[in-house]
Amino acid sequence: MKFVEQLDRAITQNNSQLCVGLDVDLSRFPQKYLSSDDPIFNFNREIIAATKDQVCAYKPNSAFYEMYGVYGLSALLKTIEFIHQETKVPVILDAKRGDVGHSSAAYAKSVFDACKADATTVNPYMGHDSVQPFLDYQEKGVFILCLTSNVGGKDFQAAGKEPLYISVAKHVKEWNHYGNCGLVVGATKPEELKEIKALAGEMPILIPGVGAQGGDLKAAVKFGGQRAIINASRSIIYAADPGAEAKKLRDEINQWR
Amino acid sequence: MKFVEQLDRAITQNNSQLCVGLDVDLSRFPQKYLSSDDPIFNFNREIIAATKDQVCAYKPNSAFYEMYGVYGLSALLKTIEFIHQETKVPVILDAKRGDVGHSSAAYAKSVFDACKADATTVNPYMGHDSVQPFLDYQEKGVFILCLTSNVGGKDFQAAGKEPLYISVAKHVKEWNHYGNCGLVVGATKPEELKEIKALAGEMPILIPGVGAQGGDLKAAVKFGGQRAIINASRSIIYAADPGAEAKKLRDEINQWR
Repeated sequence: MKFVEQLDRAITQNNSQLCVGLDVDLSRFPQKYLSSDDPIFNFNREIIAATKDQVCAYKPNSAFYEMYGVYGLSALLKTIEFIHQETKVPVILDAKRGDVGHSSAAYAKSVFDACKADATTVNPYMGHDSVQPFLDYQEKGVFILCLTSNVGGKDFQAAGKEPLYISVAKHVKEWNHYGNCGLVVGATKPEELKEIKALAGEMPILIPGVGAQGGDLKAAVKFGGQRAIINASRSIIYAADPGAEAKKLRDEINQWR
Repeated sequence: MKFVEQLDRAITQNNSQLCVGLDVDLSRFPQKYLSSDDPIFNFNREIIAATKDQVCAYKPNSAFYEMYGVYGLSALLKTIEFIHQETKVPVILDAKRGDVGHSSAAYAKSVFDACKADATTVNPYMGHDSVQPFLDYQEKGVFILCLTSNVGGKDFQAAGKEPLYISVAKHVKEWNHYGNCGLVVGATKPEELKEIKALAGEMPILIPGVGAQGGDLKAAVKFGGQRAIINASRSIIYAADPGAEAKKLRDEINQWR
């Protein structure tokens, strides 16, 4: 099944455009996980069990697993396998990779074959031949960074007479031969999101930056459209009751759909 | 010891500006490695033993390890440890990471603390706060992608009245408070390398794209300066005699220094 079909199915089934970011951080884990045999997986398993009927996607950010070396990678693989076994919710592995062609092909193998993610994020700086090896996995989703939620996003992305993020959105539209492209646009940039959405058409847009980063939720939902994927990470997974927090945010999103 | 001192020491000691890229690919390995207990590490160990007096750096590209999952990562860690034990040659882990600040901090932990690399490559698309967590490791080297050797390099890097690669080089110069920045410039772009070098001053420049990618070696050496790091990967590690091939390329580089 193509990623976009998996996504649409999860959006309908759970009546949700919420994505939960599984950004693990042992220093914030409750003690019961730290003293268990497999802290990261046990933590994720409970988050997933509590939220699986509230979300349209899960988004583990690879950085937070890689920092724990071989153990972190093992826990990531186990988490993705668990999501596939226990839910119909697709997994977006947020890895922001990109390299020259043959190296990008190796990264694509890593995220799609080794990690078995349903979609990933890619950095467009190196251009079309750095993105193509990901797109060649026609069933998988490829979210290309367009306009990011952080302060430094403006350093290069907003530069130029035609801003770089507009040029990226236009290029991605041309690259979308298999209908498997998406864009990443931060919730902290509502006006630009509207402008990008007009270019992007039916492409899914992954929107991080609500929650801990303080983005504009109403604008993200209104301007992002029916395939906007609203991501929240720390504000949900470190809440006292992650299931209740996810439901609350899903319902808040649904107010604006 | 700061990365740039490690680099200068290796350049002097081995009279070499050659970096060997450890881009492992099991499909190209001789049979004797494939039937061994640890093919990637055993292959790398022989390459390192044969080339350690000919090089100023080793550059494993993370992609080629990640595609083999947990085994690949274990072999990467073991390889880096071996280089540190057996040589005084610094390791540049070519990982091309970059993310919002707290995620970039996790990536920096991954490459510098978990993998114990001496330097890494970073993608500048997300701007200063995505690069800063790497720079905060003051002893480590941080090579920021500027103008890459691939065809798609021109899609975005060359766009704008002031091309993006010039803007990146200027920003990196401002970010270089700890003297630990470097730039990545492909050997396929000699004129632009000259222009970038004039901005970069004494910063080391990592120059891939000679060998298999067909870049201009003479121009890379002449324009790259005394801290140019000329990388070759497949043309050396898959040669019949990697040691002889490395020596040959080192000597060819030295003709133009």
